[in-house]
Amino acid sequence: MLTQKTTALEFSRKDERIAALLELVEKIDDLKSLNDLAEWDQNTLLPDGAGGTRGNQMATIQGVLHDYRTNPRLGHLLDELQERVKGAEYTDADRGLVHEARRMYKQSTKLPRALVEEMARVAANSFEAWRRARERNDFASFAPWLARTVELQREAADHFGYEETRYDALLDLYEPTMTVSKLDRLFAPVREVSATMLRRIKSSGNTVDDACLAGDFDTEKQVALSKRLLTGMGYDFNRGAIAVSPHPFTSGISSPFDVRVTVHPDRHHIQAAIMAAIHEGGHALYEQGSSESLARTLVAGGASMGVHESQSRLWENAIGRSEAFWRGQFAAVREAFPQHFANVDEATFARALNKVQPSLIRIEADEVTYNLHIIVRYELERELINGKVAIESLPRMWNAKYREYLGIEPERDSEGVLQDIHWTSGFGYFPSYTLGNLYGAQIYATLRQEFRDFDERLAIGDTAFVLNWLHEKMYAVGSIYLPEELMKRVTGKTPDPQFFVRYLTSKFEGIYEL
Amino acid sequence: MLTQKTTALEFSRKDERIAALLELVEKIDDLKSLNDLAEWDQNTLLPDGAGGTRGNQMATIQGVLHDYRTNPRLGHLLDELQERVKGAEYTDADRGLVHEARRMYKQSTKLPRALVEEMARVAANSFEAWRRARERNDFASFAPWLARTVELQREAADHFGYEETRYDALLDLYEPTMTVSKLDRLFAPVREVSATMLRRIKSSGNTVDDACLAGDFDTEKQVALSKRLLTGMGYDFNRGAIAVSPHPFTSGISSPFDVRVTVHPDRHHIQAAIMAAIHEGGHALYEQGSSESLARTLVAGGASMGVHESQSRLWENAIGRSEAFWRGQFAAVREAFPQHFANVDEATFARALNKVQPSLIRIEADEVTYNLHIIVRYELERELINGKVAIESLPRMWNAKYREYLGIEPERDSEGVLQDIHWTSGFGYFPSYTLGNLYGAQIYATLRQEFRDFDERLAIGDTAFVLNWLHEKMYAVGSIYLPEELMKRVTGKTPDPQFFVRYLTSKFEGIYEL
Repeated sequence: MLTQKTTALEFSRKDERIAALLELVEKIDDLKSLNDLAEWDQNTLLPDGAGGTRGNQMATIQGVLHDYRTNPRLGHLLDELQERVKGAEYTDADRGLVHEARRMYKQSTKLPRALVEEMARVAANSFEAWRRARERNDFASFAPWLARTVELQREAADHFGYEETRYDALLDLYEPTMTVSKLDRLFAPVREVSATMLRRIKSSGNTVDDACLAGDFDTEKQVALSKRLLTGMGYDFNRGAIAVSPHPFTSGISSPFDVRVTVHPDRHHIQAAIMAAIHEGGHALYEQGSSESLARTLVAGGASMGVHESQSRLWENAIGRSEAFWRGQFAAVREAFPQHFANVDEATFARALNKVQPSLIRIEADEVTYNLHIIVRYELERELINGKVAIESLPRMWNAKYREYLGIEPERDSEGVLQDIHWTSGFGYFPSYTLGNLYGAQIYATLRQEFRDFDERLAIGDTAFVLNWLHEKMYAVGSIYLPEELMKRVTGKTPDPQFFVRYLTSKFEGIYEL
Repeated sequence: MLTQKTTALEFSRKDERIAALLELVEKIDDLKSLNDLAEWDQNTLLPDGAGGTRGNQMATIQGVLHDYRTNPRLGHLLDELQERVKGAEYTDADRGLVHEARRMYKQSTKLPRALVEEMARVAANSFEAWRRARERNDFASFAPWLARTVELQREAADHFGYEETRYDALLDLYEPTMTVSKLDRLFAPVREVSATMLRRIKSSGNTVDDACLAGDFDTEKQVALSKRLLTGMGYDFNRGAIAVSPHPFTSGISSPFDVRVTVHPDRHHIQAAIMAAIHEGGHALYEQGSSESLARTLVAGGASMGVHESQSRLWENAIGRSEAFWRGQFAAVREAFPQHFANVDEATFARALNKVQPSLIRIEADEVTYNLHIIVRYELERELINGKVAIESLPRMWNAKYREYLGIEPERDSEGVLQDIHWTSGFGYFPSYTLGNLYGAQIYATLRQEFRDFDERLAIGDTAFVLNWLHEKMYAVGSIYLPEELMKRVTGKTPDPQFFVRYLTSKFEGIYEL
């Protein structure tokens, strides 16, 4: 069995067409790694004065990448392999590679080189503008970059083409075959269960005390603690690194060998860095888990951004906000801040991490309200792409939606429309988080069925059994299967939002004694 | 006058040939920036497990760079501009650009693409092997990589071509038009004055006490102190960053906007980090000083590696080891380590930094013995390239030369042949340091003539007058002039080793009361 499984993840390198395809693909992957390194650097170390020059570098390498991705020889090879690769002499890895390479080739050939370069240049400059605008709570200075990004994304979407709405063309980049109409069907029960739970919790009058999370926490110690928690999850620092950035993220610079994470510690609230570390750790474990045989190709890494977020959200929430997990890991927190946590126990700490309260910052939101944050963004970005929205009215629209869905409104744009990095580079990503919550809940249900002693194991500090299972079932195969097929392989079923509905209901009925 | 000077540094962008040339060159420079970023990252943050994959990335981008550098359109444009650019309607910047682009084009077209890729791949892997070998004092594990590098460098030299010796072809990469025979003439008086001064100091019986430099110095505080000293020199952190690496270096990732330095603190000897910071600071000020109008071209940055080292060595030694300098800067050292330096004064500290004593580590060597370290390396690398040297015998040869020139011998290869990073990527660089000492002494003599109150200004903490003068005379023009012409512009004379002979003699006659 092991042999067969391993073989499925090997490319047929002796086949001359596969070998030729790999040669082209490996160079593309190398250049993409350098592009990702430049982005990592921009988020973590790039001097303030170098934003413009970095924008030119990003534009140039995107131009080169475009040439490599649209190489007619690549198109020719893919045509030759299209039917042939279905044969039994080829492996699943071969088929995944041909599929992913074709997807990339088709997308790339639809875009003019000049547009690709311009998008990269604007993204780099937009990032700098956003960073400063958020610091200074100055939406107006970011607005022109945002307007230009919307323009370019609409243009790109028109080049890609779509059947129903323009936004579908962008969604497909992150979640293959996803559309607004599919999304609306998947999201409807999520919105409903969120609103219901929020109402039930409120009317119960029961509360959760999260006072133990607030204090004065040295930020360097928070980074050290993040490192320790990541190590505890099984993140391999021999193939990774951690840094601080304005917005936490994971960079699979060269999966599985070079996968890095960032955190953004908040001096006064310890959960920001801790939960970011576990969230990004989930992404990173997935990337570090790709079979080495897939390295330097398009099929190392995650199956889609939704599937990717399923791993970050699974580790962050289902595992990382459970009492069982903290029974196994709380010592690290207490040792980092012994004075603060001298009289706090694991149960109190874990419970505090599950306080439900409508709030302004997405990445700090509880699980009940989190998807409402996403739906706000999804609806706004869909409008930006499909309709005609004046950029100046965006803060007002943002605030109105927060009032509508969450019952609260930001006083400053830095806590509102300026909080997220995503719109500096594109649109269509946000739904991935809610898809991730849905996929994640389904995978979590399977995991708990598989391991009847799930909580007992976590409670003694064991997380390796989770990682090993995920590794075997889904991490090792990278993106050789499409999301739906992967979900079937891992959970036995296609994606079904009812897993999330049941997960959320049962978890918070427990916590809030409803 | 200012207008004229500014104009000389502007390209004639309205000229269609210059505009076309710039378009090609700017892309090359962008890609080179990403290559340099990847090297910076490898030295500072790259996970241990990612060395191999980074090697592939470096090979790929070098291949792309090779294509861009050998673009026939570039050759055609350069042919068209060759004579034309001499006309008065063109600027010095245009002429410098055409000259540098031609040099690059000619060098690149001589090398096969596969060799360029292989050199990059080997360099990245060799770096990892060297880092581990030095840590473990295990020359044997580095030897195969070194042998392969020698092989590739010999092959490259044969492609470049040469008139007298193969090593000349490599020398020329770092110092245009330099040859072994010229070098031997320049180095003879250096070797003589070093030996003479060493003998005179020894026979005087006079000593310098450097006990105040030894202690237990928190390495993070050393980095913070390095940062403060760099700021004091005029290094602009808005266009730079500092990190820790196994071997200190400066990276002009995108001059003048992104110029970074590293240090390698030694917990027990404070001078390692301090002097590295000032040395790398000298390189960095030069790169940050290039006129913005030259950015993204081949003529931003230093005129040659010899000229570059003249700036690092000038700041490090002539300025950074002077009592006057420390009168102005010592407060920073004392504030970083108040207990250790409570009873040490500026004069004692500066004097300690000038202790002459044959030692094993080049970057920590005093000024009298420093060039002997270089001559050891120069002679060995010349033999590696020109002759037939068995790699296994290199440690023995290294040790024998140290015995011969410095009267001491390393006990471990990590303090001997494994100490420097340079041979992980190529040969021909080391002479730049001694050339730098020669050029630097000549520039320093000019500076002191220009500013009669040189020491008085340093002593009140002023270094800006030095930086401003260097900026105006040499930094702003980048590499638009060849080293010899630049030296004439800055000092009024072509390079003359007697400046260094006089500098060294008079300085150490003073310190050792000879």
